This record gives sequence, structure tokens and C-alpha cells, in this order.
Amino acid sequence: MENFADRLCAATEAKDSRVCVGLDPRLESLPRGLQDAARARRGATPNAVAECFVEFNRRIIEAVRDVAVVVKAQVAFYEAYGPAGMEAFRRTLADAREAGLLTIADAKRNDIGSTAQAYARAYLGGGTLWDGVAYCAYDADAVTVNAYLGSDGIAPFIAAAKDGGKGVFVLVKTSNPSSGELQDAVVEGHGQRLYERLAQMVAQWGEGLVGEWGYSSVGAVVGATYPEVCALLRQELPTVPFLVPGYGAQGATAADVAHCFDQHGMGAVVNSSRGIIFAYQKSGHGEDAFAQAAREAAQRMRDEINEALAARE
Amino acid sequence: MENFADRLCAATEAKDSRVCVGLDPRLESLPRGLQDAARARRGATPNAVAECFVEFNRRIIEAVRDVAVVVKAQVAFYEAYGPAGMEAFRRTLADAREAGLLTIADAKRNDIGSTAQAYARAYLGGGTLWDGVAYCAYDADAVTVNAYLGSDGIAPFIAAAKDGGKGVFVLVKTSNPSSGELQDAVVEGHGQRLYERLAQMVAQWGEGLVGEWGYSSVGAVVGATYPEVCALLRQELPTVPFLVPGYGAQGATAADVAHCFDQHGMGAVVNSSRGIIFAYQKSGHGEDAFAQAAREAAQRMRDEINEALAARE
Repeated sequence: MENFADRLCAATEAKDSRVCVGLDPRLESLPRGLQDAARARRGATPNAVAECFVEFNRRIIEAVRDVAVVVKAQVAFYEAYGPAGMEAFRRTLADAREAGLLTIADAKRNDIGSTAQAYARAYLGGGTLWDGVAYCAYDADAVTVNAYLGSDGIAPFIAAAKDGGKGVFVLVKTSNPSSGELQDAVVEGHGQRLYERLAQMVAQWGEGLVGEWGYSSVGAVVGATYPEVCALLRQELPTVPFLVPGYGAQGATAADVAHCFDQHGMGAVVNSSRGIIFAYQKSGHGEDAFAQAAREAAQRMRDEINEALAARE
Repeated sequence: MENFADRLCAATEAKDSRVCVGLDPRLESLPRGLQDAARARRGATPNAVAECFVEFNRRIIEAVRDVAVVVKAQVAFYEAYGPAGMEAFRRTLADAREAGLLTIADAKRNDIGSTAQAYARAYLGGGTLWDGVAYCAYDADAVTVNAYLGSDGIAPFIAAAKDGGKGVFVLVKTSNPSSGELQDAVVEGHGQRLYERLAQMVAQWGEGLVGEWGYSSVGAVVGATYPEVCALLRQELPTVPFLVPGYGAQGATAADVAHCFDQHGMGAVVNSSRGIIFAYQKSGHGEDAFAQAAREAAQRMRDEINEALAARE
């Protein structure tokens, strides 16, 4: 199967877009009409919530399919509604795939080697039921992982990525306010911060998965809320693609995220969740036009990033 | 609701046991008869695997209910089988609760604050469907979390623990071979390793949740495969209970884990998964007697730890 990083780069070029839409449904923010219809059919149950999520996401996916390169679904918001929520997660990824979008499961999974393999199978594949019948519960194109446990916990994800043409994004420097508490620790004897040390490990882990575009299928999560870190890591990690949270609702601008790209405007995708999917709450669109509002917000984000890249000389 | 750490200590005393049984079903290791029966009913489907897991776990739970203090279910093994697997996870926790056992969801979840809250709701509670109707998908007594993102990603779990009498175990020093790559980094200006720095943060996070037994409901995961670390952290963190993996199949002995306990034999629970639930493969019991083999292995583990504690000084 084609290298994930190549698929990501090709889609970026074809759509002239670096936008990742975060499908992070929060029940209280969904259009009232969708909520009421689901409750009418199913009562106030997790199944009703799950139906609501699937329908909401399907319409967002349809609206952004030619504007976004990839969608990222945050597993937590589905997991909160139990097995029904996870079925909604599965269906949403399938819907996105069918619409020609790449998919990232934002799971931040992590465990020791033999257990990490079970997670890798859930999201990237390589597992079986009985008699060698293949089964992958969620079948995303890529998954986010947390490397606090070190390389033996990451290896199963990389093996699954290699075997299946999938991708892995390792949390390196996260976008949240307290990310520095551990990540910014200066490591004695190295003169580097912990995230820099991990960043170099990420580059090494991905050495065997560099595709024709020069990027590896083992990427890094680098928060746009720390633009100076983005610039540093972009320079230090020329083969590592970035998944960049923090744009929009979390405060980072197009000029901030521009630091994540190489001189050809490649090497990163930028995520926005609330700023796109709940744009209808701020745009003056009625709630029935939530998908149109999302489309316009995604177009605006695409254009703002492209303009910020063009403005770099 | 009663403080989680108090419930843990009281159960430890009542049962004179420090055993945590890891309910980590691996399909290929389950008794053939259980597998065949589930396949006959359901075909080679995730639902058949899920039924198999529930039945296997139920019989293990029944067999160890008076020997173990707590069960820890590793979410990865269930998640690999999709929504059906997560339904099996839910039912297993419910079965354990009904048998009077405390439950730990070994999820190692982590995310930025607003998302971490969704995970906290999934495992510990505090969420609602509509109109304030409470809903908690899995309702464990405690959950394991990964703190690489820092305190704002941990706060929602601690808030949920406080509100619901639940517990949180933060990964501090994990049991796997490569755990040192990041965790052992010496932090400049502190002269401490990263796991020590995090350990102190864990103690601070738990200050408001110390119960009558002197332990907090915010605990630490400390691998028994690093006994000198266990001894150091036991001394530095007098109020932090430990969840201790690494016993048995991973190589740590009763003498190793003894370092995790205070002078009264309190302050830790020790997990064993394969060594107990798949004991039938090595004990000479037929596969039909897998539950009895698990019971005997749990009793042996309980006694070995108690003897190692008695043999100190």
C-alpha cells in the first residue's frame, strides 16, 4: 500500500490545502434540531447521541471534502458515550474515507509493547479474529500516540504503519498551557529540552518510512501555540511531517503555523476543530446551515494559511 | 462517596491481600472450549470474541473474588475488537463490581484539558446525556493516566475522582525495558530524574484527596521491574499509593515488590495478568479448570507477597 506520507503530500498538493478538520462533536454544541430528532427516535440514550454524532459528522464531511486534506476524530468525545459512541467513531471514519479524505484517529494511545500492539491493531490493522481472518476495528489512516513509555511501546505502531501504508503521529510538544511541565525539561548532558530529544527519536523511528516526497510516515504533534518551537523543530526534523493543533479556538494564527512548513509549503497539516465544525454559532448562519458555515470556515482557514505561506519570502 | 484510597486500604486489610488481577484477555490464550462455543453461537465475529471475553472474565472474577483486592482491565485488549469489545469491557467491570472487587480501567488516557474531561467522564463519571441525566460508560473505581501533557490534562481526572470517590493512577516509572528513554532523563537544575519530578507533581495533585488511612486517591504506576526506583519513590511519596505492574510474567519477584509497601504493608497493589489468568497453561490443570488454576495462582501470589513483607528487616 502506498506510503502514508506520500498520500498526505499528494492530497496537500492536489487540493492546495493544509487543513485538517477536527471531528470533535460536543453534544451541547450540536444543532438543536439534530439533537431533538435523534432523541425522538431513540430516547435520551447513548445510541441517540451516537446517531446525532454520525449525522452531524456526515454533513460536515460532505461540506469539507474538497477543502480539507484530512479529518482528525478525537476518540475521547466518542468514548465518553460507551460502545455506542465507538460505533459512531467507526462509522465517521468510514464516511470520511468514502468521501476521499484521509483520517487520523486522535487517540494518544500508549502502553508497553505487547499491549501497544493491541492498540495498533485497533486503529491501523494487522489483527485477526480466527483462522487468520483480518479485522481492524477502526481502520484509520493514522493514529496519534504518546511516547512517555519509550520506543518499545511505539514499535508496534510503526510496524503496523509500515505493513499497512499507515501513519503515526507522536506527541512531541503539545498545544496546551501546561505542556512545558515535563516536555520543556532541560535534559542534563544533552543541553536539549525533553521534546527535542524525543523529536530526534521520532526522526529515527521514521527512517525506514520516508516516501517519495521526502517525508516519513512517522510524524510529530507540534502545537502551533508555541511557534518558536515549530520553527526550531521544522529545521531539526526535515523528514518528519507535523500534525499541528492549536489553530483557531486555542489561539494560534496562520502566521504562527507557517513555521511548521518547509519552503515548498509542505510538511504539515493544521487542525481546527471547534473553529470549523461549530462555526455556525458565530457566523450568523442558522443552525440548519451548520455544514455550509463549516465549509466557509474551512475555506477561510485554507486561504489564510496559504496566504501566510506565500507572504514568507 | 467514600474516598477511593480508603476503600483500597480497607479491602487490603480485610482480605490480607495486595493482589490485583489483570483481566487482559488474549484471544489465542483463552481455553479452546470457550472459543469454540462462542464461535458456534456467533460465528467468527467481534461479537463472538466479546462473548468469549465476558465469559472467561466472569469465571476468573468468581474464582478470585475473595483473594484479590482489585481487578485491572487493560482497555487495549478490548478496544482491539471494536464496539463489541468495549461492551465486553463494560460488562466485565460491572461483573467485578458486583463480586465486591474494586476495578481499575488501565487506559493510560491523556489529552488537553477539555478533552481529558471527556475521558474522565467515560471512566470515572461526571457526564450526562440530556437534561442532566447522569451517564458513565464504564464506571471504574480508578483509571490510569499518562501525564506527558502536564497538569491541565490531569486536572479533569482528579476533579472526577474527587467528586465521585474515584481514583487516578499516574504513570510515573513504567515496567517496560525502554521506560528509561524519557523517564530516566536527568533534569538540569533539579538533579532529579524526570520520573522523580513527575512523582512530586503526583503527590501535589493528590494533596486534597488523602483519606483516613493516610493515602491519597491520586496514585502512581511504578514498575516492580525497577525495585530500586520503587524503594526510592516509596520513601519520597509517603501519601501516594502505588499500582505495581511487572510481577510474574514480566520478571519481578515478591522481594522486588516488597519495596513498594510501607512498614505496615500498605500503600500498594501488585498486578499480575498472564501469570494468573493463563496459569492453567502451565499448572497442569486442564483448560476446563482455568478458573481454579487462576485462583491457586492468585493465592500463591498473595502469600508470596505477604511472606516477603513479613521477612523484611
